[in-house]
Amino acid sequence: MVTEVVDISCDMGEAFGQWQLGSTSDEKLMKLISSANIAAGFHAGDPNHMDASIRLALEAKVRIGVHPGYRDLQGFGRRKIVGTIEENINDIVYQIGALREFARLYDAEIQHVKAHGALYMELAANEEMSKSFVQLMRKIAPEAFIYCMGASATYRAAVELGQPVIREFYADREYDKSGVIVLTRRGANYEPGKLAERVVRACLEGKVRATDGHDIDISFESICVHSDTPSSVELLQAIRAALGAKGIRIAAPS
Amino acid sequence: MVTEVVDISCDMGEAFGQWQLGSTSDEKLMKLISSANIAAGFHAGDPNHMDASIRLALEAKVRIGVHPGYRDLQGFGRRKIVGTIEENINDIVYQIGALREFARLYDAEIQHVKAHGALYMELAANEEMSKSFVQLMRKIAPEAFIYCMGASATYRAAVELGQPVIREFYADREYDKSGVIVLTRRGANYEPGKLAERVVRACLEGKVRATDGHDIDISFESICVHSDTPSSVELLQAIRAALGAKGIRIAAPS
Amino acid sequence: MVTEVVDISCDMGEAFGQWQLGSTSDEKLMKLISSANIAAGFHAGDPNHMDASIRLALEAKVRIGVHPGYRDLQGFGRRKIVGTIEENINDIVYQIGALREFARLYDAEIQHVKAHGALYMELAANEEMSKSFVQLMRKIAPEAFIYCMGASATYRAAVELGQPVIREFYADREYDKSGVIVLTRRGANYEPGKLAERVVRACLEGKVRATDGHDIDISFESICVHSDTPSSVELLQAIRAALGAKGIRIAAPS
Amino acid sequence: MVTEVVDISCDMGEAFGQWQLGSTSDEKLMKLISSANIAAGFHAGDPNHMDASIRLALEAKVRIGVHPGYRDLQGFGRRKIVGTIEENINDIVYQIGALREFARLYDAEIQHVKAHGALYMELAANEEMSKSFVQLMRKIAPEAFIYCMGASATYRAAVELGQPVIREFYADREYDKSGVIVLTRRGANYEPGKLAERVVRACLEGKVRATDGHDIDISFESICVHSDTPSSVELLQAIRAALGAKGIRIAAPS
Repeated sequence: MVTEVVDISCDMGEAFGQWQLGSTSDEKLMKLISSANIAAGFHAGDPNHMDASIRLALEAKVRIGVHPGYRDLQGFGRRKIVGTIEENINDIVYQIGALREFARLYDAEIQHVKAHGALYMELAANEEMSKSFVQLMRKIAPEAFIYCMGASATYRAAVELGQPVIREFYADREYDKSGVIVLTRRGANYEPGKLAERVVRACLEGKVRATDGHDIDISFESICVHSDTPSSVELLQAIRAALGAKGIRIAAPS
Repeated sequence: MVTEVVDISCDMGEAFGQWQLGSTSDEKLMKLISSANIAAGFHAGDPNHMDASIRLALEAKVRIGVHPGYRDLQGFGRRKIVGTIEENINDIVYQIGALREFARLYDAEIQHVKAHGALYMELAANEEMSKSFVQLMRKIAPEAFIYCMGASATYRAAVELGQPVIREFYADREYDKSGVIVLTRRGANYEPGKLAERVVRACLEGKVRATDGHDIDISFESICVHSDTPSSVELLQAIRAALGAKGIRIAAPS
Repeated sequence: MVTEVVDISCDMGEAFGQWQLGSTSDEKLMKLISSANIAAGFHAGDPNHMDASIRLALEAKVRIGVHPGYRDLQGFGRRKIVGTIEENINDIVYQIGALREFARLYDAEIQHVKAHGALYMELAANEEMSKSFVQLMRKIAPEAFIYCMGASATYRAAVELGQPVIREFYADREYDKSGVIVLTRRGANYEPGKLAERVVRACLEGKVRATDGHDIDISFESICVHSDTPSSVELLQAIRAALGAKGIRIAAPS
Repeated sequence: MVTEVVDISCDMGEAFGQWQLGSTSDEKLMKLISSANIAAGFHAGDPNHMDASIRLALEAKVRIGVHPGYRDLQGFGRRKIVGTIEENINDIVYQIGALREFARLYDAEIQHVKAHGALYMELAANEEMSKSFVQLMRKIAPEAFIYCMGASATYRAAVELGQPVIREFYADREYDKSGVIVLTRRGANYEPGKLAERVVRACLEGKVRATDGHDIDISFESICVHSDTPSSVELLQAIRAALGAKGIRIAAPS
C-alpha cells in the first residue's frame, strides 16, 4: 500500500466583504479537512474573513496555511498578471505576513503556504520564480511546508533548497500526461463517488488517468478539494468514507 | 530643561506603484529622522515600496514603525470610513502583519505602530476603539510603542493597559486649545525657521501656541514631520539644527 | 384608492467577479420587477456583471437605473466615507457614465439614478450634497428620475430644481417616525405575507407603522425590495399577488 | 513633403488621489499638445482627476481622448492581465463611459480612444481582441478615432471595419524592425533635441532608425509623448519648434 495517511486541504476564507463564494459554508468544509489554505486578501479574503477563518480552523483543529494570490479580486486570482519576479515575491511576503498576524493573535502557527490559482500555475512553470519563492520561505518560514504539484518547478526548487514540501493531488481537477492539472472548469465530472474512487486509486496505486486516456504515476501527501467545486461537502464526505474503507488515515502532515 | 533627548518620526513609504508622494525623496528624509512610520498598503504603500522602505530604514539605522490607515488609496486615508471597531482592528492587524513580515525578511523588529490620518484622529477621539487597539497591541506586539497625541483616548488607553506609548508633537500642524491637532492644510505656515523655533520652545518650555492664540501645555517624546509637507527636508534640517543648538539629542525611544 | 399603479425596483448586478450576492439569482428577480437599480462597480458590480445585468433587464423589459455607491467593495457601500461633496459627486458621474455606456451598447436608455446604501442615506440627510447631486442630474440626465425617500433632502432638492423624482417605499425596511428607513438588519421580520400586507396598506391607505408603534403617512411611486433580503423572490411574489388582488398594476414610472 | 499637419498627444490625468505622476504638471503639458489621452481610473486617474483633466483640456482647446488600461493601479497598467477578450472589452466600455460622462458634463465630445500600456500592446498583437475592440467602437463611438501603431492588428482591424483611425509615432520610444515600439525604459536617450530631430525626419521622410540600426518606413498622423518621460515639457517644446521650423502645423485630426 502506497499511502497510510494523507492530508486533505481546502481553500478557505475565499469570501470578500458581503460576498460568500458559492453556496457552501466554510463551517461545514472545515470539519472535513486537516489543512486549510486561507486567502489573504489579494484574490479573495479580507481582514474580517481572515480572522474568522483562523478561528474556524482552530476550533476544528485544522492546520493553517497561507494562500497568497495575484492582486486581482475581480478575476479571483485566476488571471496571470505579468509582473516581475521581485514584485510577485513581495506580494507573497505581504500576504504571508498579514495572515500570520491573525494566527499570532490566537497563538497559532502557519503550517504551510500554498499559492493560489494563476500564481500557483505560474510558480509551477517558472523555475526562477519558484527558486525566489523557496528562498523567501527559507528566510521567513523555514519550517512551513510549501504545497505544490509534484510535477512543478516549485517542488523541484523546494527539494533542492531543503524547504519542507508537500505534493498535492487534486480530487476535482483533470491531469494532463505530464502530471500537471488542467483547468477544465466546464464539463468536469464532479460526481462525488467517481472522484472519491479516483482519489483512492491514486492513494493505493499511485496512478491517475490523464486527459489523454493513459494512466500516469502520481505521488502526493495531500489531497486538495476546491471549496467552490459543486457539491464539495459531498465530495469530501465521499473521499473520507472511501479512504476510511481502505484504512487510510486523514491527518495534517507532520 | 524639559527634554534632553527626543525622537523624530516621519511618514515613509507613502508612494504607490509608479507614484511618489510629493517631490521629496524618502532617501533624503530617512537620514534626518530616528523613527519611520511606514505605510502598509491601505492608504499608501505597496509590497514593493514596503520592502524598499524597510531597507532604507535599516541602512539609515532608523527604527521601523507600522503606519496603518483606512483602506482608502484614493483619499490617502484622510477620509474616515464609518465601520465597526472590529473591522477597523482587523484592518490594523492585517497591516501590522504585512509590514512586520518585510521587517522579518531583514531580521528587523517593529519598534512602534502609529495610525495614519483619519484613523489616527478617530482613535484619538474614540475610547472604545482605542481600548480595542491597545488590547490588540498587548497581544501581538506588547513591546512595541504606540505613537499618538498626548491629548487622546489612545494615550489614556495605552497608559491604563500598560502598553509602551510615545506622545507626539507635530512640527507642521496647528493645535487647538485642547491639545488636539487641527488639519488646517491650507494657509499653514510652513516656514522652516519658525516651525523649528516652535519645536524648540515645546521641547524646552513644554508650551505651544494654540489656534485660539493662547499657550497650552504639551508633553511629548517624539516630533512628527509629514513627508508631504512642503520643504520637509529643510524643515527637518532646521529642527535638527535648532535642537542641536540647545543640546537636545535626537534618538529613537528606548 | 391612493395608488392605481406602482413601480417595483430591486438592486441588481450586486455580484463582483466570482462572487454572487446571497443565494438569489438576478434572473429570477428580474422577472418580478419593473425597474432595476444596477450596481456600477464601486460598492458592487464589475464591467462583466454590468453588461450581463443590462442584458437581463432588457430581456425582461425592465427599466434600467444606475445604482452608484461609495467606493467601498469590502463594506458593500454600507459604510459612509467622509469626503467632500465634490468628490462624492464626481464618483457619481463616473458610475453613471460607466453604466450608461453599457446601456448605449444595447441602444438602451437610463431611466433613473438611485444612490446605494450609505450614499443614499447621506444624500437623504445632506441638503448641500443633494442639491449638488440634483444639479448634476439637471446637466447630464435631465429626463432621468432620481429615486429617493419622500422624507429626504434629495426629494426636496429634486422638486425644487425640477428634476423628475420617484419616492420609494421599502418593503423590507422599518421606518422611524420621521419617515426615514432604519437599518435594522437583524431581527427584521421578513415574513413575505406580512410584508406584502404592509405594502398593500401603504399603497391603499398611505400609512405605515413606524418603529415607535404609531402610524405615519407615506407617499411613494415605487416599492423597493433588496435582492439580498432573505426570500426576496417569495417576498416579491407575495407583493405582486397582494397588489394584483387589489387591482394595483405594476409598471415602471412614466 | 510627407506631412503638412500632425497631431501631438500626451497621456494626461495619470495622477491618482494625492499622487501626481512624475514632476511635470499636466497644466504645462496641456498647452503643448493638440490631443489628450485621459486616464479613466483603471491604471491611473480617479473621478476627481478625470474631471480636472477634462476642464484643463477644454481650457487649452485640446481634444479629449479616453485612455483605458488594465485594472492595475499598482502596476500602472503596464502589466498584462491574462483575461478573456470579453472581459477586456467590458473594461474598455466601462472606462469609455466613465470619461465620456465627465465630457458630457461640459458639453464636450470624445475625439478618440487610445488604449494604455500593456493593453495597447496586447491589442496591437491580438487580431481577435482588436476586432472586438473595433466592433465595440463601431457601436458606441463610430465617429471617434482609434489611436494605435500603424504596425498593429488594431490598425488593420480599424481599416477593415471602417472605424476612423490615427497612427501614432512615439517620440520617446524605440522601434524594432517591424515598426513596433520597444519598451526600453532604461537607457533610453531622452535628449530633447535629438528626439525632436528624429520626429522631424519621420514627418518629412517617413523613416525612423530601428533598434537593429536600419531605417524602417513609418507612417503616422499623430506624435505621442509620455508625460512621465523625463523632461517631457522640454521635449514637447523642442518638437514644436523643430516642426514649426519646417512649416509643419500641429493640430488635432479632422
